[in-house]
Amino acid sequence: MPTDKPMQLGMIGLGRMGANLVRRLMRDGHTCVAYDVSASAVKALESEGAQGATKLADFVAKLEKPRAVWIMVPAAVVQPTLDDLRPLLEPGDIVIDGGNSYYRDDIDRAKQLITDGIHFVDCGTSGGVWGLDRGYCLMIGGENEPVEHLGPIFKTIAPGSGSAEPTASRKAGGTAPQGYLHCGPSGAGHFVKMVHNGIEYGVMQAYAEGFSIMRAKQPLDLDLEQISQIWRYGSVVRSWLLDLIADALKKNPTLEGLEAYVTDSGEGRWTVFEAIDLNVSAPVITESLIRRLRSREENNFTDRMLAVMRNEFGGHAVKKL
Amino acid sequence: MPTDKPMQLGMIGLGRMGANLVRRLMRDGHTCVAYDVSASAVKALESEGAQGATKLADFVAKLEKPRAVWIMVPAAVVQPTLDDLRPLLEPGDIVIDGGNSYYRDDIDRAKQLITDGIHFVDCGTSGGVWGLDRGYCLMIGGENEPVEHLGPIFKTIAPGSGSAEPTASRKAGGTAPQGYLHCGPSGAGHFVKMVHNGIEYGVMQAYAEGFSIMRAKQPLDLDLEQISQIWRYGSVVRSWLLDLIADALKKNPTLEGLEAYVTDSGEGRWTVFEAIDLNVSAPVITESLIRRLRSREENNFTDRMLAVMRNEFGGHAVKKL
Repeated sequence: MPTDKPMQLGMIGLGRMGANLVRRLMRDGHTCVAYDVSASAVKALESEGAQGATKLADFVAKLEKPRAVWIMVPAAVVQPTLDDLRPLLEPGDIVIDGGNSYYRDDIDRAKQLITDGIHFVDCGTSGGVWGLDRGYCLMIGGENEPVEHLGPIFKTIAPGSGSAEPTASRKAGGTAPQGYLHCGPSGAGHFVKMVHNGIEYGVMQAYAEGFSIMRAKQPLDLDLEQISQIWRYGSVVRSWLLDLIADALKKNPTLEGLEAYVTDSGEGRWTVFEAIDLNVSAPVITESLIRRLRSREENNFTDRMLAVMRNEFGGHAVKKL
Repeated sequence: MPTDKPMQLGMIGLGRMGANLVRRLMRDGHTCVAYDVSASAVKALESEGAQGATKLADFVAKLEKPRAVWIMVPAAVVQPTLDDLRPLLEPGDIVIDGGNSYYRDDIDRAKQLITDGIHFVDCGTSGGVWGLDRGYCLMIGGENEPVEHLGPIFKTIAPGSGSAEPTASRKAGGTAPQGYLHCGPSGAGHFVKMVHNGIEYGVMQAYAEGFSIMRAKQPLDLDLEQISQIWRYGSVVRSWLLDLIADALKKNPTLEGLEAYVTDSGEGRWTVFEAIDLNVSAPVITESLIRRLRSREENNFTDRMLAVMRNEFGGHAVKKL
């Protein structure tokens, strides 16, 4: 079912997320101009029906005014991209940052761009590799007018486009059609996405600990994969993350060959900073972040400190490398 | 679609869970004998087609041999119920404890009952008020033979009976048909259910903290109910608990009129005891339990201790009641 109001969108950044957003938009009848530094990434989307550009000026020239430019690049590359893009844009144009930027940067960027009459919209985008077919959960911040203008784009990207999923009611003063939410002013979209990821850390850690306890109960010889499978049906802890756990345990029931090393990409630590700044006690999200830091400390110094203290006061043995 | 192998089951305890289990069994073609100390609870199920009994001897007399008796009573009432029931049963009979007993009690009870030739099966049952229609997630412990004998009962109670849900593959040495799992020997069912509830504590706490951080960010004036709604579609944190959060926030978006007081019914603390006993670090599940304890401490003594220490060494003001 094609959208009732086709639009044109320019996409900067054709990684997995950016490319799939372009695909989902074109499937629904929108037209896209696709830009990337990688010529092969551009060529791939051209072959699927997008207009391509490997030079930023060419990309901007191919966009109808007022332009709508979606930036889908790593957080560290957003500012240089904006610096290159800004002189090529005109008043009335709209820039959407769909990545995982820090919400405080959004507030600064929106203030700077509006001095040139350029509107800045921040958009937290969740959905991972499944988003192309199922849609992405969109958390949007910015002025009402540009967000409303982009409605057909958001509607297509979000879940529920052409499906029977429920319609979210309108938020007073903002736009909240089906499957996406205008959360509030500049920064609100990435703030909500940041907390979403903080919650994700805690939920993941809770599952991981539970499976670890079951694995350690050796006399019961529990089948973790089978347990993850039946919990998906009827149990209180059923969730999309549990579906993924079941998939992972099916492929590798003992997680053998993997290192207990977990990275983080910023949102968890920003959530913890924010909780402390707001005087909100959030021990589980905080502890989940700390556990990731701990997973990356080789021969942890704190534990060596504990071992030497026990040795000093009690003569307890210290294990040596 | 009625079951292909109708059986008879006796149910002791006609609370919400027990009564709904009887209803789900009868809908699928099984026959039930329903016992409770409350005559009105028995009468209600009689009017729906069950045989009723308000005396335990009468209940047992109405059951065909080998008897199958499901106990669905609060954990504290299981032992007295077993003490009353045991002299009325005969070798070959099977008792199922479907409640939330401590798995260590299961192991003891199974050992005691088998000396009379009575088989004891422990069954963790998850699903709450939604289980009647959607089915209950069943985690089962005990000997292979009685668990296999009860297969048609478990199959009916579990989700997927007559539906298109996926079929779990067989567990080596046990029985694992659709929607329920024979987890292992005596105690294994309630052990897995215990850890399930421990995970539930952590997952709930992670969501609660995230919503608390968003609520505290007053300049953004975030609509928590709308956020919970859109996260249900396409986001990484979508889950059944999030569906329930969205329902709760729809009814009461600010949670006004509610006290910040959270009880626990044992499984969380047993999970923490077990984790420590097994030398497994489970900080998030542990902290989630501790937060529930904290929610019940009025004018917390630890915090008063901190306040007087700060006063002693730094002259910092202590707030008085």
